[in-house]
Amino acid sequence: MALGVGDDAALVRVPANRELAVSSDMLVAGVHFPDNTDARSIGHKALAVNLSDMAAMGADPCWFTLSLSLPRADLDWLREFTLGLYELAEQYDVALIGGDTTRGPLTVGIQILGTVPSGMALTRNGARPGDRIFVTGHLGDAALGLRVARGGIELSSEDREWFRSRLDRPSPRVAAGIQLRGIATTCIDISDGLVADLGHVLDASSVGARVDVTRIPLSPAYQRLFLQFGWTPAVSGGDDYELCFTVPPDREADLRNCSDHLGVSFFEIGIIERSGGLRLLDEQGRQVNVTQSGFDHFR
Amino acid sequence: MALGVGDDAALVRVPANRELAVSSDMLVAGVHFPDNTDARSIGHKALAVNLSDMAAMGADPCWFTLSLSLPRADLDWLREFTLGLYELAEQYDVALIGGDTTRGPLTVGIQILGTVPSGMALTRNGARPGDRIFVTGHLGDAALGLRVARGGIELSSEDREWFRSRLDRPSPRVAAGIQLRGIATTCIDISDGLVADLGHVLDASSVGARVDVTRIPLSPAYQRLFLQFGWTPAVSGGDDYELCFTVPPDREADLRNCSDHLGVSFFEIGIIERSGGLRLLDEQGRQVNVTQSGFDHFR
Repeated sequence: MALGVGDDAALVRVPANRELAVSSDMLVAGVHFPDNTDARSIGHKALAVNLSDMAAMGADPCWFTLSLSLPRADLDWLREFTLGLYELAEQYDVALIGGDTTRGPLTVGIQILGTVPSGMALTRNGARPGDRIFVTGHLGDAALGLRVARGGIELSSEDREWFRSRLDRPSPRVAAGIQLRGIATTCIDISDGLVADLGHVLDASSVGARVDVTRIPLSPAYQRLFLQFGWTPAVSGGDDYELCFTVPPDREADLRNCSDHLGVSFFEIGIIERSGGLRLLDEQGRQVNVTQSGFDHFR
Repeated sequence: MALGVGDDAALVRVPANRELAVSSDMLVAGVHFPDNTDARSIGHKALAVNLSDMAAMGADPCWFTLSLSLPRADLDWLREFTLGLYELAEQYDVALIGGDTTRGPLTVGIQILGTVPSGMALTRNGARPGDRIFVTGHLGDAALGLRVARGGIELSSEDREWFRSRLDRPSPRVAAGIQLRGIATTCIDISDGLVADLGHVLDASSVGARVDVTRIPLSPAYQRLFLQFGWTPAVSGGDDYELCFTVPPDREADLRNCSDHLGVSFFEIGIIERSGGLRLLDEQGRQVNVTQSGFDHFR
């Protein structure tokens, strides 16, 4: 880094053979996290969702700026928030290079910068018929975490803790994104739900897909609530920040190597097809057409 | 640009011989602009304050991301906001490359990226004793604009309009910042007030300064309110977004050329001194020590 926090702008250097990946996400209290979320989790999540955007591009995250609006100067709150933020920043070796704090409704704006070898970024428009569709981990836990946060669900304290931690402290799949460069034909992070986010990939690639819902990985805690909630949280719930990506059949050996190297499981859930739209096969093997806004079938 | 809005991140290329300048500023309704500010002005100001950070670094602004939180989807408001934002973006040839819109308290977060030839950025730590201190234009109008917005000041409608426009639609000094590369030894934009912002430069450069308040340029509208408000708005009022910079005596001819080239006046208001602290000379030629937080002398 050429110059850090404290001038009118930070100065950084981008290597000549790399492109700069730029993204920003703002989290608003009561909208992007429940009002009762602890400060440390808010610090974690605000950076995690931005790191997840870098993961989805296959970019190495490098730097971020923070704009924080706070109702009052609460030093305990700030200490916890900073702790959550810095733990994650240290884990992923990203540097805070600027920002400002102001008085106002609780809002956390983060802008993240990463770099990727030129031409190697994972985009949304490269899926071809026959590509297999994968996800990096359990889906639906964050949506269940939101239900848990609202109260009224009978749960063991361990399961309650699990769902809240999956909602409040997502693990961005940065290492997976980097390893998938040159293997995956598309990649996106699941922030709005599998149907919506895979839908963006299908639209950008002008293809369709078939997904077997029974192959979507569910956590043990989710499985214990399955009779109550069915597939809906896994299929349409957002905020999981797992990656969804496509790989051509002839690259599946490379993918297995990559999975072994990372010690991360990739779960094959479907296949890209020529015919547009997303077709879901339910537990009876019935094909159900689903739009991004309508999942009533699953409720 | 390699790839724009619509993927998980935007991809851009930074020329190999340039550094990337990164800054972000969040504007909160009722804090950074009066609640009665029109949408078009909010769009203008949110980008202007970020462009001003690029100006203060001598950077060419290139790209920005926008995070907008809005209480409700008001299409008329959005149209006006976008108009104000895009007018300025077009004028300075900066591209919106990403962002998100969410429901929440009215908050506008912008992150701006610019480039500057390596090693040529204008920072805060290069001022040396003997350097002359300049500003790019009238100070204090924005602070008076805030007073006008609160009501209770007798004014002609033209003067009222002038002050509001100086508060709501500042003109970032981007061209001046670029031209000052290689001439100015430091540069900062006046967002918190001359005393506070020049103070940052003095601290970073480990020097002091003497400023003759009578040489601070005041607009004709300000001059008509001078008996009522004195020097306070010009010395301690923020939000003007003029540049304050220092130039060694042997570069003043280059500075005059630069001023002629731009058609912009630079106003010499003081001199850098070895002894720390900021000394202001008032209209009686008396020397007054002023701290960043105390300007009672002027009230």
